[in-house]
Amino acid sequence: MKYPDHLCKLIEVLKKLPGVGGKSAERFAFQMLDWAPEHLQEMSDIIKDVPKNLKQCSECGCLIGETACAFCNPMRQVNNSMCIVASPRDVFSIEETHEYHGQYHVLGALLSPLNGIGVDKLNLHKLRERIAKYHIHEVVIALDSTLEGDATALYIKQELESMQITVTRLAFGLPMGSALNYVDGGTLARAFLGRGRF
Amino acid sequence: MKYPDHLCKLIEVLKKLPGVGGKSAERFAFQMLDWAPEHLQEMSDIIKDVPKNLKQCSECGCLIGETACAFCNPMRQVNNSMCIVASPRDVFSIEETHEYHGQYHVLGALLSPLNGIGVDKLNLHKLRERIAKYHIHEVVIALDSTLEGDATALYIKQELESMQITVTRLAFGLPMGSALNYVDGGTLARAFLGRGRF
Repeated sequence: MKYPDHLCKLIEVLKKLPGVGGKSAERFAFQMLDWAPEHLQEMSDIIKDVPKNLKQCSECGCLIGETACAFCNPMRQVNNSMCIVASPRDVFSIEETHEYHGQYHVLGALLSPLNGIGVDKLNLHKLRERIAKYHIHEVVIALDSTLEGDATALYIKQELESMQITVTRLAFGLPMGSALNYVDGGTLARAFLGRGRF
Repeated sequence: MKYPDHLCKLIEVLKKLPGVGGKSAERFAFQMLDWAPEHLQEMSDIIKDVPKNLKQCSECGCLIGETACAFCNPMRQVNNSMCIVASPRDVFSIEETHEYHGQYHVLGALLSPLNGIGVDKLNLHKLRERIAKYHIHEVVIALDSTLEGDATALYIKQELESMQITVTRLAFGLPMGSALNYVDGGTLARAFLGRGRF
């Protein structure tokens, strides 16, 4: 017995959400059948308006709503530092720490030649220009500690070598609250190499 | 740092999906930001059209698409049996077994006085009428083996006692492929009580 056509379509479109397989999509879809039409309409409207109401800043690549970019403001420009992140989401994670008050530069992706993501896919062409324009002293590379993140960080470091700026990268080490015997060998090794005077 | 307004709205609406909390909703939302506008439009349209394209049959309560109810047809009516289920979804589960070829009657809910679901919330008023109209010989109660399912089954049995029909309920016992020492006591007890000649 096949589901009605429209239900199949609804399940298919819900399966596109990350980590949602056939069973979860079915569960979502059947739950949505019980929703009031106005709730479905509301959800439909919000999804439809995403491209209109959520854009990336053409300058830094951060996410902006209907107002101007919250990160491209003079208060942040006097800081003379620029943090390089992979996605707009990372900006919010760093903001939550309240440890950084400079500008951001969103790459949009990490180098991954096997997936067809080369240097041309990264938002790098504006980076040198922005570093010069805002007299940046320090570039903080805040990329994932993965193969792709390492490769991208290395590439950016080499690219910026000719400029008179300090390039730093987030520290590697033990996550807070971790027990030594549960930490993987790679993390422990990097924490050891990066040990500091106590 | 707060997310832009529209992103908050998107996260809130995604949190209404069953089993989706704040973190998952954020993950869905950020993934959707990367979708092409036409994919968002497609999803929006499908959700908006749910009330128009997916209805419950006024006769049996099963889910119908844009065509007539697939379960209210003469082929099924000659079978003289009616299966009572809680939700339209259960109909599809039973259909997949290919063991039943009669009509269905969807209650829409199970009795649950603590949640304010009393007898008046169940689609029972048409049941007696349909049983008489189609000369039903057997009513199969296919409800969950939970407290609510048991209570509802008992109520329906008592309701139908005055009619000259056989009321049956799905068997309780070991699920297929189960090991005895992993089965809970309640299931094992009912499987024992319901043991049959081998």
